[in-house]
Amino acid sequence: MINFKSVTDFRLHGGKYFIPCVSIDCVIFGFHRNQLKVLLLKIANLNGWGLPAGFIYKEEHIDEAAKRILCQRTGLQNIFLQQFYVFGDPGRCDNNITKIAFENEGIKAPTDNWLLQRFLTIGYYALVNYKAVNATTDFFSEDFNWHDIDNFPMLAMDHNEIVDKALLTLRTHLRYQPVGYNLLPEKFTMPELQKLYETILDRKLDRRNFQRKMLSYGILRRLKQRREGVAHKAPYLYSFDLRKYHKALKEGFQSAW
Amino acid sequence: MINFKSVTDFRLHGGKYFIPCVSIDCVIFGFHRNQLKVLLLKIANLNGWGLPAGFIYKEEHIDEAAKRILCQRTGLQNIFLQQFYVFGDPGRCDNNITKIAFENEGIKAPTDNWLLQRFLTIGYYALVNYKAVNATTDFFSEDFNWHDIDNFPMLAMDHNEIVDKALLTLRTHLRYQPVGYNLLPEKFTMPELQKLYETILDRKLDRRNFQRKMLSYGILRRLKQRREGVAHKAPYLYSFDLRKYHKALKEGFQSAW
Repeated sequence: MINFKSVTDFRLHGGKYFIPCVSIDCVIFGFHRNQLKVLLLKIANLNGWGLPAGFIYKEEHIDEAAKRILCQRTGLQNIFLQQFYVFGDPGRCDNNITKIAFENEGIKAPTDNWLLQRFLTIGYYALVNYKAVNATTDFFSEDFNWHDIDNFPMLAMDHNEIVDKALLTLRTHLRYQPVGYNLLPEKFTMPELQKLYETILDRKLDRRNFQRKMLSYGILRRLKQRREGVAHKAPYLYSFDLRKYHKALKEGFQSAW
Repeated sequence: MINFKSVTDFRLHGGKYFIPCVSIDCVIFGFHRNQLKVLLLKIANLNGWGLPAGFIYKEEHIDEAAKRILCQRTGLQNIFLQQFYVFGDPGRCDNNITKIAFENEGIKAPTDNWLLQRFLTIGYYALVNYKAVNATTDFFSEDFNWHDIDNFPMLAMDHNEIVDKALLTLRTHLRYQPVGYNLLPEKFTMPELQKLYETILDRKLDRRNFQRKMLSYGILRRLKQRREGVAHKAPYLYSFDLRKYHKALKEGFQSAW
Protein backbone atom coordinates (compact mmCIF):
# COMPACT_ATOMS: atom_id res chain seq x y z
CA MET A 1 0.00 0.00 0.00
CA ILE A 2 1.30 3.44 -0.92
CA ASN A 3 1.41 6.15 1.74
CA PHE A 4 0.76 9.43 0.05
CA LYS A 5 2.33 12.47 1.72
CA SER A 6 -0.82 14.51 1.35
CA VAL A 7 -4.10 14.57 -0.49
CA THR A 8 -2.43 16.79 -3.10
CA ASP A 9 0.32 14.21 -3.58
CA PHE A 10 -2.41 11.60 -4.06
CA ARG A 11 -4.36 13.73 -6.51
CA LEU A 12 -1.29 14.58 -8.58
CA HIS A 13 0.54 11.24 -8.53
CA GLY A 14 -2.00 8.52 -7.67
CA GLY A 15 -2.28 7.67 -11.36
CA LYS A 16 1.10 5.91 -11.20
CA TYR A 17 -0.25 3.31 -8.80
CA PHE A 18 -3.92 2.74 -9.63
CA ILE A 19 -5.78 1.28 -12.61
CA PRO A 20 -7.01 4.25 -14.63
CA CYS A 21 -10.69 5.16 -15.05
CA VAL A 22 -12.09 2.54 -12.62
CA SER A 23 -13.15 3.06 -9.01
CA ILE A 24 -14.93 0.98 -6.39
CA ASP A 25 -17.93 2.14 -4.37
CA CYS A 26 -19.10 0.26 -1.28
CA VAL A 27 -22.68 0.19 -0.04
CA ILE A 28 -22.31 -0.89 3.59
CA PHE A 29 -25.59 -2.07 5.11
CA GLY A 30 -26.15 -2.34 8.87
CA PHE A 31 -29.30 -3.14 10.86
CA HIS A 32 -30.10 -1.45 14.16
CA ARG A 33 -33.37 -0.97 16.06
CA ASN A 34 -35.39 -2.37 13.16
CA GLN A 35 -33.85 0.06 10.72
CA LEU A 36 -31.78 -0.79 7.68
CA LYS A 37 -28.94 1.71 7.47
CA VAL A 38 -26.14 2.62 5.07
CA LEU A 39 -22.76 4.00 6.15
CA LEU A 40 -22.01 7.32 4.45
CA LEU A 41 -19.01 9.63 4.50
CA LYS A 42 -19.14 13.41 4.45
CA ILE A 43 -16.89 14.30 1.54
CA ALA A 44 -14.15 16.81 2.33
CA ASN A 45 -14.53 20.23 0.59
CA LEU A 46 -17.97 19.36 -0.71
CA ASN A 47 -20.36 19.66 2.23
CA GLY A 48 -22.17 16.58 0.97
CA TRP A 49 -22.45 12.86 1.63
CA GLY A 50 -21.20 9.98 -0.48
CA LEU A 51 -20.32 6.30 -0.42
CA PRO A 52 -16.99 4.99 0.83
CA ALA A 53 -14.93 4.63 -2.32
CA GLY A 54 -11.44 3.92 -3.53
CA PHE A 55 -9.24 2.73 -6.34
CA ILE A 56 -7.58 -0.51 -7.47
CA TYR A 57 -3.78 -0.88 -7.35
CA LYS A 58 -2.30 -1.92 -10.66
CA GLU A 59 -1.44 -5.42 -9.40
CA GLU A 60 -4.42 -5.92 -7.09
CA HIS A 61 -7.42 -8.23 -7.54
CA ILE A 62 -10.60 -6.13 -7.61
CA ASP A 63 -12.14 -8.16 -4.74
CA GLU A 64 -9.01 -7.52 -2.64
CA ALA A 65 -9.28 -3.82 -3.43
CA ALA A 66 -12.90 -3.79 -2.24
CA LYS A 67 -11.93 -5.60 0.99
CA ARG A 68 -9.06 -3.17 1.58
CA ILE A 69 -11.31 -0.14 1.05
CA LEU A 70 -13.98 -1.57 3.35
CA CYS A 71 -11.40 -2.32 6.03
CA GLN A 72 -9.88 1.16 5.78
CA ARG A 73 -13.29 2.77 6.23
CA THR A 74 -14.86 0.50 8.85
CA GLY A 75 -12.03 -1.37 10.58
CA LEU A 76 -13.81 -4.61 9.67
CA GLN A 77 -12.31 -7.72 8.07
CA ASN A 78 -13.81 -11.02 6.87
CA ILE A 79 -17.03 -9.36 5.82
CA PHE A 80 -19.71 -10.62 3.44
CA LEU A 81 -18.90 -8.48 0.44
CA GLN A 82 -20.44 -8.92 -2.95
CA GLN A 83 -19.83 -7.29 -6.30
CA PHE A 84 -23.21 -6.32 -7.73
CA TYR A 85 -22.97 -3.94 -10.71
CA VAL A 86 -20.77 -1.70 -12.81
CA PHE A 87 -22.00 1.84 -13.32
CA GLY A 88 -20.80 3.04 -16.68
CA ASP A 89 -22.81 6.07 -17.77
CA PRO A 90 -20.35 8.52 -19.38
CA GLY A 91 -22.17 11.35 -17.58
CA ARG A 92 -21.89 9.83 -14.09
CA CYS A 93 -18.61 11.48 -13.11
CA ASP A 94 -18.47 14.90 -11.60
CA ASN A 95 -14.92 16.08 -12.11
CA ASN A 96 -15.80 19.38 -10.50
CA ILE A 97 -15.03 17.91 -7.07
CA THR A 98 -11.43 17.36 -8.14
CA LYS A 99 -11.23 20.64 -10.06
CA ILE A 100 -12.46 22.65 -7.08
CA ALA A 101 -10.05 20.79 -4.79
CA PHE A 102 -7.13 21.66 -7.07
CA GLU A 103 -8.26 25.30 -7.27
CA ASN A 104 -8.62 25.55 -3.49
CA GLU A 105 -5.04 24.39 -3.17
CA GLY A 106 -3.85 26.81 -5.86
CA ILE A 107 -2.67 23.99 -8.14
CA LYS A 108 -3.02 24.07 -11.89
CA ALA A 109 -3.71 20.42 -12.67
CA PRO A 110 -2.78 19.02 -16.07
CA THR A 111 -5.82 18.12 -18.17
CA ASP A 112 -4.56 14.54 -18.41
CA ASN A 113 -4.59 14.22 -14.59
CA TRP A 114 -5.85 10.73 -13.76
CA LEU A 115 -8.72 12.01 -11.56
CA LEU A 116 -10.05 14.31 -14.29
CA GLN A 117 -10.93 11.38 -16.56
CA ARG A 118 -14.22 9.53 -16.89
CA PHE A 119 -14.55 6.76 -14.28
CA LEU A 120 -16.52 3.53 -14.32
CA THR A 121 -17.29 2.35 -10.81
CA ILE A 122 -17.72 -1.22 -9.58
CA GLY A 123 -20.38 -1.45 -6.86
CA TYR A 124 -19.84 -3.84 -3.92
CA TYR A 125 -22.30 -4.29 -1.11
CA ALA A 126 -21.47 -5.44 2.40
CA LEU A 127 -23.61 -6.60 5.30
CA VAL A 128 -21.93 -5.66 8.56
CA ASN A 129 -22.49 -5.82 12.26
CA TYR A 130 -23.60 -2.26 13.05
CA LYS A 131 -22.08 -2.34 16.51
CA ALA A 132 -18.68 -3.66 15.38
CA VAL A 133 -18.08 -0.83 12.94
CA ASN A 134 -15.43 1.64 13.91
CA ALA A 135 -15.53 4.05 11.01
CA THR A 136 -12.70 6.51 10.50
CA THR A 137 -12.26 9.65 8.48
CA ASP A 138 -9.30 10.23 6.20
CA PHE A 139 -8.30 13.04 3.93
CA PHE A 140 -11.25 12.45 1.62
CA SER A 141 -13.85 12.58 4.37
CA GLU A 142 -14.68 14.94 7.22
CA ASP A 143 -17.26 12.82 8.99
CA PHE A 144 -19.21 9.57 8.77
CA ASN A 145 -22.66 8.48 9.81
CA TRP A 146 -25.25 5.72 9.43
CA HIS A 147 -28.31 6.86 7.49
CA ASP A 148 -31.70 5.16 7.60
CA ILE A 149 -32.64 3.77 4.21
CA ASP A 150 -36.14 5.27 4.40
CA ASN A 151 -34.92 8.79 5.15
CA PHE A 152 -31.96 9.09 2.88
CA PRO A 153 -30.06 12.26 1.91
CA MET A 154 -29.13 13.33 -1.62
CA LEU A 155 -25.68 11.96 -2.34
CA ALA A 156 -22.82 13.06 -4.58
CA MET A 157 -22.71 12.01 -8.25
CA ASP A 158 -24.80 8.88 -8.98
CA HIS A 159 -24.44 7.44 -5.48
CA ASN A 160 -28.20 7.42 -4.84
CA GLU A 161 -28.62 5.24 -7.91
CA ILE A 162 -25.85 2.94 -6.63
CA VAL A 163 -27.59 2.56 -3.24
CA ASP A 164 -30.94 1.88 -4.96
CA LYS A 165 -29.36 -0.82 -7.12
CA ALA A 166 -27.63 -2.38 -4.09
CA LEU A 167 -30.94 -2.52 -2.23
CA LEU A 168 -32.67 -4.05 -5.25
CA THR A 169 -29.87 -6.64 -5.46
CA LEU A 170 -30.17 -7.43 -1.76
CA ARG A 171 -33.95 -7.93 -2.20
CA THR A 172 -33.30 -10.27 -5.11
CA HIS A 173 -30.71 -12.23 -3.14
CA LEU A 174 -33.31 -12.81 -0.40
CA ARG A 175 -35.15 -14.99 -2.91
CA TYR A 176 -32.44 -17.58 -3.30
CA GLN A 177 -29.69 -17.14 -0.70
CA PRO A 178 -29.49 -16.51 3.04
CA VAL A 179 -29.22 -13.01 4.46
CA GLY A 180 -28.93 -12.13 8.12
CA TYR A 181 -25.56 -13.23 9.40
CA ASN A 182 -23.62 -10.05 10.34
CA LEU A 183 -26.82 -8.02 10.33
CA LEU A 184 -28.39 -9.78 13.34
CA PRO A 185 -26.85 -10.58 16.73
CA GLU A 186 -25.58 -14.14 17.16
CA LYS A 187 -28.84 -15.25 18.79
CA PHE A 188 -32.17 -13.94 17.56
CA THR A 189 -35.85 -14.76 17.60
CA MET A 190 -37.96 -15.62 14.56
CA PRO A 191 -39.85 -12.26 14.82
CA GLU A 192 -36.48 -10.44 14.78
CA LEU A 193 -35.42 -12.32 11.63
CA GLN A 194 -38.79 -11.59 10.04
CA LYS A 195 -38.44 -7.90 10.88
CA LEU A 196 -35.09 -7.82 9.07
CA TYR A 197 -36.67 -9.36 5.96
CA GLU A 198 -39.64 -6.97 6.16
CA THR A 199 -37.30 -4.01 6.45
CA ILE A 200 -35.25 -5.05 3.43
CA LEU A 201 -38.37 -5.85 1.37
CA ASP A 202 -40.25 -2.81 2.70
CA ARG A 203 -43.46 -4.77 3.24
CA LYS A 204 -45.22 -7.00 5.78
CA LEU A 205 -44.86 -10.78 5.53
CA ASP A 206 -47.18 -13.46 6.82
CA ARG A 207 -45.77 -14.84 10.09
CA ARG A 208 -46.55 -18.52 9.51
CA ASN A 209 -45.43 -18.58 5.86
CA PHE A 210 -42.23 -16.83 6.82
CA GLN A 211 -41.41 -19.28 9.60
CA ARG A 212 -42.18 -22.32 7.42
CA LYS A 213 -40.08 -21.01 4.57
CA MET A 214 -37.11 -20.05 6.75
CA LEU A 215 -37.11 -23.42 8.51
CA SER A 216 -37.32 -25.25 5.16
CA TYR A 217 -33.98 -23.74 4.13
CA GLY A 218 -32.23 -25.73 6.85
CA ILE A 219 -29.84 -22.95 7.83
CA LEU A 220 -31.24 -22.22 11.33
CA ARG A 221 -30.44 -23.95 14.61
CA ARG A 222 -33.10 -23.63 17.33
CA LEU A 223 -31.35 -23.15 20.67
CA LYS A 224 -32.42 -24.66 23.99
CA GLN A 225 -32.20 -21.24 25.55
CA ARG A 226 -35.24 -18.97 25.15
CA ARG A 227 -35.47 -15.17 25.13
CA GLU A 228 -35.91 -14.13 28.78
CA GLY A 229 -37.85 -11.25 30.29
CA VAL A 230 -40.91 -11.78 28.11
CA ALA A 231 -44.29 -11.76 29.89
CA HIS A 232 -46.08 -14.79 28.41
CA LYS A 233 -44.51 -17.58 26.40
CA ALA A 234 -40.80 -16.90 25.99
CA PRO A 235 -39.88 -17.08 22.26
CA TYR A 236 -37.29 -19.53 20.97
CA LEU A 237 -33.84 -18.25 20.15
CA TYR A 238 -32.14 -19.25 16.90
CA SER A 239 -28.69 -18.95 15.46
CA PHE A 240 -27.40 -19.64 11.96
CA ASP A 241 -25.80 -22.99 11.20
CA LEU A 242 -22.78 -21.38 9.58
CA ARG A 243 -21.66 -24.42 7.61
CA LYS A 244 -25.09 -24.75 5.98
CA TYR A 245 -25.43 -20.97 5.73
CA HIS A 246 -22.22 -20.65 3.72
CA LYS A 247 -23.12 -23.64 1.56
CA ALA A 248 -26.46 -21.98 0.71
CA LEU A 249 -24.68 -18.69 0.10
CA LYS A 250 -22.50 -20.41 -2.47
CA GLU A 251 -25.06 -22.69 -4.12
CA GLY A 252 -28.36 -20.91 -3.53
CA PHE A 253 -31.42 -22.49 -1.93
CA GLN A 254 -32.41 -25.60 -3.83
CA SER A 255 -36.14 -25.20 -3.18
CA ALA A 256 -36.87 -22.85 -6.07
CA TRP A 257 -37.01 -25.53 -8.77
CA MET B 1 -17.32 4.68 -34.62
CA ILE B 2 -13.69 4.75 -35.68
CA ASN B 3 -12.66 2.87 -38.80
CA PHE B 4 -9.15 1.63 -38.27
CA LYS B 5 -7.06 1.23 -41.40
CA SER B 6 -5.74 -2.14 -40.30
CA VAL B 7 -5.41 -4.32 -37.27
CA THR B 8 -1.95 -2.85 -36.74
CA ASP B 9 -3.40 0.66 -36.79
CA PHE B 10 -5.95 -0.50 -34.19
CA ARG B 11 -3.29 -2.14 -31.99
CA LEU B 12 -0.99 0.87 -32.11
CA HIS B 13 -3.51 3.70 -31.88
CA GLY B 14 -6.74 2.28 -30.39
CA GLY B 15 -5.75 3.66 -27.00
CA LYS B 16 -6.67 7.17 -28.15
CA TYR B 17 -10.31 6.19 -28.54
CA PHE B 18 -11.08 3.56 -25.91
CA ILE B 19 -11.26 3.57 -22.11
CA PRO B 20 -7.98 2.06 -20.90
CA CYS B 21 -7.72 -1.29 -19.11
CA VAL B 22 -11.39 -2.31 -19.48
CA SER B 23 -12.88 -4.67 -22.05
CA ILE B 24 -16.28 -6.29 -22.59
CA ASP B 25 -16.82 -10.01 -23.17
CA CYS B 26 -20.14 -11.35 -24.45
CA VAL B 27 -21.49 -14.81 -23.69
CA ILE B 28 -24.09 -15.33 -26.42
CA PHE B 29 -26.46 -18.21 -25.66
CA GLY B 30 -28.62 -19.86 -28.29
CA PHE B 31 -30.88 -22.94 -28.11
CA HIS B 32 -31.18 -25.41 -30.96
CA ARG B 33 -32.29 -29.06 -31.08
CA ASN B 34 -32.50 -29.24 -27.30
CA GLN B 35 -28.93 -28.03 -26.92
CA LEU B 36 -27.79 -24.87 -25.18
CA LYS B 37 -25.01 -23.35 -27.24
CA VAL B 38 -22.55 -20.48 -26.98
CA LEU B 39 -21.24 -18.49 -29.94
CA LEU B 40 -17.43 -18.54 -30.10
CA LEU B 41 -14.92 -16.90 -32.39
CA LYS B 42 -11.68 -18.44 -33.58
CA ILE B 43 -9.09 -15.87 -32.64
CA ALA B 44 -6.79 -14.78 -35.44
CA ASN B 45 -3.12 -15.82 -35.08
CA LEU B 46 -3.88 -17.98 -32.07
CA ASN B 47 -5.50 -21.14 -33.40
CA GLY B 48 -7.86 -21.07 -30.41
CA TRP B 49 -11.41 -20.10 -29.54
CA GLY B 50 -12.61 -17.19 -27.44
CA LEU B 51 -15.63 -15.03 -26.64
CA PRO B 52 -16.72 -12.10 -28.80
CA ALA B 53 -15.10 -9.12 -27.11
CA GLY B 54 -14.49 -5.45 -27.57
CA PHE B 55 -13.71 -2.11 -25.99
CA ILE B 56 -15.61 0.94 -24.77
CA TYR B 57 -15.28 4.28 -26.55
CA LYS B 58 -14.29 7.12 -24.24
CA GLU B 59 -17.73 8.75 -24.44
CA GLU B 60 -19.84 5.58 -24.71
CA HIS B 61 -22.17 4.06 -22.10
CA ILE B 62 -20.93 0.56 -21.24
CA ASP B 63 -24.34 -0.96 -22.11
CA GLU B 64 -24.22 0.74 -25.51
CA ALA B 65 -20.72 -0.64 -26.04
CA ALA B 66 -21.96 -4.16 -25.25
CA LYS B 67 -24.88 -3.75 -27.69
CA ARG B 68 -22.55 -2.43 -30.39
CA ILE B 69 -20.11 -5.35 -29.93
CA LEU B 70 -22.97 -7.86 -30.01
CA CYS B 71 -24.41 -6.29 -33.15
CA GLN B 72 -21.02 -6.25 -34.89
CA ARG B 73 -20.51 -9.95 -34.18
CA THR B 74 -24.02 -11.31 -34.75
CA GLY B 75 -25.91 -8.77 -36.84
CA LEU B 76 -28.58 -8.72 -34.13
CA GLN B 77 -30.18 -5.70 -32.49
CA ASN B 78 -32.71 -5.27 -29.64
CA ILE B 79 -31.40 -8.30 -27.81
CA PHE B 80 -31.85 -9.28 -24.17
CA LEU B 81 -28.41 -8.39 -22.89
CA GLN B 82 -27.45 -8.36 -19.26
CA GLN B 83 -24.32 -7.32 -17.44
CA PHE B 84 -23.45 -10.07 -14.99
CA TYR B 85 -19.94 -9.77 -13.54
CA VAL B 86 -16.59 -8.02 -13.68
CA PHE B 87 -13.54 -10.26 -13.91
CA GLY B 88 -10.65 -8.55 -12.19
CA ASP B 89 -7.93 -11.04 -11.39
CA PRO B 90 -4.60 -9.33 -12.13
CA GLY B 91 -3.39 -12.61 -13.67
CA ARG B 92 -6.32 -13.00 -16.07
CA CYS B 93 -4.76 -11.18 -19.04
CA ASP B 94 -2.54 -12.88 -21.52
CA ASN B 95 -0.62 -10.13 -23.24
CA ASN B 96 1.26 -12.72 -25.24
CA ILE B 97 -1.50 -12.68 -27.86
CA THR B 98 -0.77 -9.02 -28.54
CA LYS B 99 3.01 -9.45 -28.23
CA ILE B 100 3.04 -12.31 -30.74
CA ALA B 101 0.82 -10.33 -33.08
CA PHE B 102 3.22 -7.38 -32.97
CA GLU B 103 6.19 -9.68 -33.52
CA ASN B 104 4.53 -11.39 -36.48
CA GLU B 105 4.07 -7.99 -38.07
CA GLY B 106 7.67 -6.97 -37.31
CA ILE B 107 6.58 -4.11 -35.07
CA LYS B 108 8.39 -3.13 -31.89
CA ALA B 109 5.51 -2.05 -29.66
CA PRO B 110 6.14 0.48 -26.91
CA THR B 111 5.80 -1.05 -23.42
CA ASP B 112 3.09 1.50 -22.61
CA ASN B 113 0.99 0.29 -25.56
CA TRP B 114 -2.65 0.24 -24.43
CA LEU B 115 -3.16 -3.46 -25.25
CA LEU B 116 -0.13 -4.54 -23.21
CA GLN B 117 -1.72 -3.37 -19.93
CA ARG B 118 -3.78 -5.35 -17.45
CA PHE B 119 -7.46 -5.48 -18.42
CA LEU B 120 -10.57 -5.90 -16.34
CA THR B 121 -13.42 -7.30 -18.37
CA ILE B 122 -17.15 -6.73 -17.93
CA GLY B 123 -19.17 -9.83 -18.74
CA TYR B 124 -22.52 -9.48 -20.54
CA TYR B 125 -24.73 -12.38 -21.46
CA ALA B 126 -27.24 -12.44 -24.29
CA LEU B 127 -30.05 -14.83 -25.19
CA VAL B 128 -30.50 -14.87 -28.93
CA ASN B 129 -32.52 -16.56 -31.60
CA TYR B 130 -30.09 -19.16 -32.93
CA LYS B 131 -31.52 -19.02 -36.42
CA ALA B 132 -31.45 -15.23 -36.69
CA VAL B 133 -27.73 -14.97 -36.00
CA ASN B 134 -25.59 -13.99 -38.93
CA ALA B 135 -22.15 -14.00 -37.37
CA THR B 136 -19.27 -12.35 -39.18
CA THR B 137 -15.52 -12.50 -38.85
CA ASP B 138 -13.37 -9.41 -38.66
CA PHE B 139 -9.67 -8.86 -38.25
CA PHE B 140 -9.64 -10.37 -34.78
CA SER B 141 -11.34 -13.58 -35.76
CA GLU B 142 -10.85 -16.18 -38.49
CA ASP B 143 -14.00 -18.19 -37.94
CA PHE B 144 -17.07 -18.51 -35.69
CA ASN B 145 -19.17 -21.39 -34.51
CA TRP B 146 -21.83 -22.42 -32.00
CA HIS B 147 -20.50 -24.80 -29.35
CA ASP B 148 -22.65 -27.09 -27.21
CA ILE B 149 -22.38 -26.17 -23.56
CA ASP B 150 -21.86 -29.80 -22.54
CA ASN B 151 -18.98 -30.39 -24.93
CA PHE B 152 -17.06 -27.18 -24.65
CA PRO B 153 -13.53 -26.46 -25.90
CA MET B 154 -10.73 -24.85 -23.86
CA LEU B 155 -10.90 -21.12 -24.48
CA ALA B 156 -8.32 -18.33 -24.41
CA MET B 157 -7.44 -16.56 -21.15
CA ASP B 158 -10.16 -16.88 -18.46
CA HIS B 159 -13.00 -17.23 -20.98
CA ASN B 160 -14.05 -20.68 -19.69
CA GLU B 161 -14.52 -19.10 -16.24
CA ILE B 162 -16.57 -16.30 -17.81
CA VAL B 163 -18.85 -18.82 -19.58
CA ASP B 164 -19.25 -20.82 -16.33
CA LYS B 165 -20.21 -17.69 -14.42
CA ALA B 166 -22.67 -16.66 -17.15
CA LEU B 167 -24.33 -20.07 -17.00
CA LEU B 168 -24.51 -19.89 -13.20
CA THR B 169 -26.08 -16.44 -13.49
CA LEU B 170 -28.60 -17.66 -16.05
CA ARG B 171 -29.54 -20.54 -13.70
CA THR B 172 -30.01 -18.07 -10.86
CA HIS B 173 -32.13 -15.79 -13.01
CA LEU B 174 -34.47 -18.74 -13.76
CA ARG B 175 -35.45 -18.57 -10.09
CA TYR B 176 -36.97 -15.13 -10.20
CA GLN B 177 -37.32 -13.86 -13.75
CA PRO B 178 -38.55 -15.21 -17.06
CA VAL B 179 -36.19 -16.81 -19.56
CA GLY B 180 -37.15 -18.18 -22.93
CA TYR B 181 -38.07 -15.31 -25.23
CA ASN B 182 -35.45 -15.21 -28.01
CA LEU B 183 -34.33 -18.74 -27.16
CA LEU B 184 -37.58 -20.43 -28.22
CA PRO B 185 -39.60 -19.97 -31.41
CA GLU B 186 -42.60 -17.64 -31.13
CA LYS B 187 -44.97 -20.57 -30.50
CA PHE B 188 -43.88 -23.50 -28.36
CA THR B 189 -45.32 -26.36 -26.34
CA MET B 190 -45.00 -26.80 -22.59
CA PRO B 191 -42.60 -29.77 -23.03
CA GLU B 192 -40.39 -27.58 -25.25
CA LEU B 193 -40.27 -24.87 -22.59
CA GLN B 194 -39.52 -27.48 -19.93
CA LYS B 195 -36.71 -28.90 -22.07
CA LEU B 196 -35.13 -25.43 -22.23
CA TYR B 197 -35.23 -25.13 -18.43
CA GLU B 198 -33.85 -28.64 -18.00
CA THR B 199 -31.02 -27.90 -20.40
CA ILE B 200 -30.05 -24.71 -18.59
CA LEU B 201 -30.34 -26.36 -15.15
CA ASP B 202 -28.73 -29.59 -16.38
CA ARG B 203 -31.29 -31.78 -14.60
CA LYS B 204 -34.76 -33.29 -15.01
CA LEU B 205 -37.81 -31.43 -13.67
CA ASP B 206 -41.17 -32.82 -12.65
CA ARG B 207 -43.65 -32.22 -15.48
CA ARG B 208 -46.66 -31.25 -13.36
CA ASN B 209 -44.74 -29.02 -10.95
CA PHE B 210 -43.09 -27.29 -13.88
CA GLN B 211 -46.37 -26.61 -15.64
CA ARG B 212 -48.06 -25.34 -12.48
CA LYS B 213 -45.17 -23.04 -11.64
CA MET B 214 -44.83 -21.62 -15.16
CA LEU B 215 -48.57 -20.94 -15.40
CA SER B 216 -48.55 -19.27 -11.97
CA TYR B 217 -46.12 -16.62 -13.27
CA GLY B 218 -48.80 -15.31 -15.62
CA ILE B 219 -46.43 -14.68 -18.53
CA LEU B 220 -47.77 -17.34 -20.91
CA ARG B 221 -50.66 -17.14 -23.34
CA ARG B 222 -52.23 -20.45 -24.36
CA LEU B 223 -53.10 -20.31 -28.04
CA LYS B 224 -56.20 -21.77 -29.69
CA GLN B 225 -53.99 -23.46 -32.23
CA ARG B 226 -52.43 -26.78 -31.25
CA ARG B 227 -49.25 -28.46 -32.46
CA GLU B 228 -50.20 -30.47 -35.53
CA GLY B 229 -48.85 -33.75 -36.79
CA VAL B 230 -48.84 -35.43 -33.40
CA ALA B 231 -50.31 -38.92 -33.21
CA HIS B 232 -52.52 -38.78 -30.10
CA LYS B 233 -53.65 -35.68 -28.29
CA ALA B 234 -52.11 -32.65 -29.96
CA PRO B 235 -50.31 -30.51 -27.33
CA TYR B 236 -51.29 -26.91 -26.70
CA LEU B 237 -49.14 -24.16 -28.13
CA TYR B 238 -48.10 -21.19 -25.98
CA SER B 239 -46.49 -17.84 -26.60
CA PHE B 240 -45.14 -15.27 -24.16
CA ASP B 241 -47.34 -12.35 -23.15
CA LEU B 242 -44.59 -9.84 -23.88
CA ARG B 243 -46.03 -7.03 -21.76
CA LYS B 244 -46.16 -9.28 -18.69
CA TYR B 245 -42.88 -10.94 -19.63
CA HIS B 246 -41.03 -7.63 -19.67
CA LYS B 247 -42.71 -6.49 -16.46
CA ALA B 248 -41.52 -9.68 -14.76
CA LEU B 249 -38.07 -9.24 -16.25
CA LYS B 250 -37.89 -5.82 -14.65
CA GLU B 251 -39.50 -6.56 -11.29
CA GLY B 252 -38.92 -10.28 -10.81
CA PHE B 253 -41.63 -12.84 -10.08
CA GLN B 254 -43.57 -11.84 -6.99
CA SER B 255 -44.27 -15.40 -5.88
CA ALA B 256 -41.00 -15.96 -4.01
CA TRP B 257 -42.07 -14.15 -0.81
